[in-house]
Amino acid sequence: MAQLLSSAVQGYMANSSMIRKMFEQGIQLKKQYGEDKVYDFSLGNPDLPAPKAVVDGLKAFAESAGKPFSFGYTPNAGAPWAREALAKWISADQGVELAAGDVLLSAGAASALNAVLRAVFNPGEELIAFAPYFVEYDFYVANHGGHLTRVMTQKDTFRPDVEALEKAISAKTRAVIVNSPNNPTGVVYTLDEMKAICALLERKSAEVGHPIWLLCDEPYRFLAYDGCEVPSVLPLYRYAVVLSSFSKNMSLPGERIGYAALSPLLEERAELMAAITLTNRILGYVNAPIVGQHIMVAALGSAVDRDVYLRRRDAMADVLTQAGIEFTLPKGAFYFFPKAPGGDDKAFVAALAEERVLGVPGSGFGCPGFFRLAFCVDEKVIRNSAEGFAKARAKFA
Amino acid sequence: MAQLLSSAVQGYMANSSMIRKMFEQGIQLKKQYGEDKVYDFSLGNPDLPAPKAVVDGLKAFAESAGKPFSFGYTPNAGAPWAREALAKWISADQGVELAAGDVLLSAGAASALNAVLRAVFNPGEELIAFAPYFVEYDFYVANHGGHLTRVMTQKDTFRPDVEALEKAISAKTRAVIVNSPNNPTGVVYTLDEMKAICALLERKSAEVGHPIWLLCDEPYRFLAYDGCEVPSVLPLYRYAVVLSSFSKNMSLPGERIGYAALSPLLEERAELMAAITLTNRILGYVNAPIVGQHIMVAALGSAVDRDVYLRRRDAMADVLTQAGIEFTLPKGAFYFFPKAPGGDDKAFVAALAEERVLGVPGSGFGCPGFFRLAFCVDEKVIRNSAEGFAKARAKFA
Repeated sequence: MAQLLSSAVQGYMANSSMIRKMFEQGIQLKKQYGEDKVYDFSLGNPDLPAPKAVVDGLKAFAESAGKPFSFGYTPNAGAPWAREALAKWISADQGVELAAGDVLLSAGAASALNAVLRAVFNPGEELIAFAPYFVEYDFYVANHGGHLTRVMTQKDTFRPDVEALEKAISAKTRAVIVNSPNNPTGVVYTLDEMKAICALLERKSAEVGHPIWLLCDEPYRFLAYDGCEVPSVLPLYRYAVVLSSFSKNMSLPGERIGYAALSPLLEERAELMAAITLTNRILGYVNAPIVGQHIMVAALGSAVDRDVYLRRRDAMADVLTQAGIEFTLPKGAFYFFPKAPGGDDKAFVAALAEERVLGVPGSGFGCPGFFRLAFCVDEKVIRNSAEGFAKARAKFA
Repeated sequence: MAQLLSSAVQGYMANSSMIRKMFEQGIQLKKQYGEDKVYDFSLGNPDLPAPKAVVDGLKAFAESAGKPFSFGYTPNAGAPWAREALAKWISADQGVELAAGDVLLSAGAASALNAVLRAVFNPGEELIAFAPYFVEYDFYVANHGGHLTRVMTQKDTFRPDVEALEKAISAKTRAVIVNSPNNPTGVVYTLDEMKAICALLERKSAEVGHPIWLLCDEPYRFLAYDGCEVPSVLPLYRYAVVLSSFSKNMSLPGERIGYAALSPLLEERAELMAAITLTNRILGYVNAPIVGQHIMVAALGSAVDRDVYLRRRDAMADVLTQAGIEFTLPKGAFYFFPKAPGGDDKAFVAALAEERVLGVPGSGFGCPGFFRLAFCVDEKVIRNSAEGFAKARAKFA
């Protein structure tokens, strides 16, 4: 019998086996040595409990959950009261004026992003991402018949290279995606950098004769350190769309609640909103989970304690410095992206795994020679991993 | 400036405006005449409250919701405990033996179906559906580069026409979708009909040299009347996949919790499960909403009271009979699909709307000349609509 799967998915399966093997190795190590003897920095699954307002909101919803339509469909863009509350919160948080009709609730930032891609991409068109980047973007654009082109960030600093971006843009370019605070590098783009990107895309949109969308994936917006500010792109560029979620700031990744927000500068934003409301429906998200919508409204403005993450960042910086591993100090998000001693990221990550320290090779983010560590784990785990890092480092002296 | 949207979505927007206008008309009518003076049979949004076990399950989850990882990501196919419970429940309900690894939890039946289509469709391939059918299927297959071909059911009875199906199958056919109990007709396929379809697809799969999947969309499985049985396809055909949700039996459509279940006859089902676990992730569903997973497990086996729907069906049958409108009595689901007096479904639905009775033209289901009425509304609304039906009918005498 011929193959079960589509040719594309058959290919994905073959390529994804490396990451699956690492994941299985982690489970194996934990079984063999015990959970507390494995230092797992491989996943961005927030360990802090959800803020109290989330739990209170859930309990309040439960009180009325026995009524008709409590769990009913909401409009495809979200319940009107939830969109209203979200628009107010984003407006206050980012210094813009958004109405309920400018925001779409979806099942996480990933689904909001897919809804936008489905609405604007024609087959064969191109999404540009600065590398290193979150590799799910490759799949997301392929879902809609497009493909992803990588533009390297500036050497070692991982800051956006606007000249390189300009060279990469062609008539096939439909959108550019930026992710700040960045996964995996922890870099936060400055206002000047965002303005430079917007000015370029404004000019290039006119040149190619169609909008080049700027998709800003911002789940880590709340998590910036050292007084670093995360500028809002919404007042800067009419073709900007913000995608985000409450997965990180409310520790809610499993409930799948996120959104898309349109720039108030876009005159035709009602048309785009109608389109992403449709694509949010036809992609099978239908509406953001109703319990998630209630929780979000109850807890808007509350967040987990950023200082916990700050202390972890500093602990990880100590551990890496002591081990003699080079890195750029992250200014946001909860990742380090250090240089792999010896230069071979897969080899170094394998050496770390021998010491029961788990990370992810930079190759998995389009950037070999580096590796990613997620520090959304207890500070003790970070401190206790010092010996493992030192031993692995010694092998590449 | 060139158009904002992709050419495909631009086309969808133009075509979807008719249904949007009807929806807006409904809101307008309710504002003008009051909610209780409008008889709205246009939407399949269940009005019965969720069963007590759902609310109890939600409250139990809320008690532990303040712990770390309570709202964390689950594996992409669902939490192991939720898959285990679901597999046991389906096994008992359908007389098959499924393991946890044979079921995938997703954000509703729509997302589970999209995950399967993404995994098996190559661009240009074809999904066949018996008409009338749920027109979202057109979008779902277009999402993955395929297209839908309609095969008409048997005249007036809406029973599957297996000979017509055979003629429609070609080397481009990748899957056939059936929906029983059916939306919009209320027809329930018999065991003999399902066996005939399976035997045909078994033979045709061998002929074309690739699996022709049988996708069974079954959200109304629990809702069959008059002692009518809903056969399970899982023990009949190795390439059968069941898609379903708890939207209807637990009145939970807004929380988005559904699943795919694979046939135990498929030897390579681990490969298919790995693929739909991947596609469930890359399509941006990531994992079924965690609160929904908890609720589902707490309430498996409970359902809303079927007898309420049965009484409504009988009330609607009375109303239509008195008005002199022809129909086939539905044996399942909560829809009537009567003949439009005068033959023009859009004209008759417009005449109904003038009497503040809302339905949907059969054209919206690939079957002009009929119209759909959803009876998931209070029995009083059905009884009180009698005058409206009679008046509209009189205009087409």
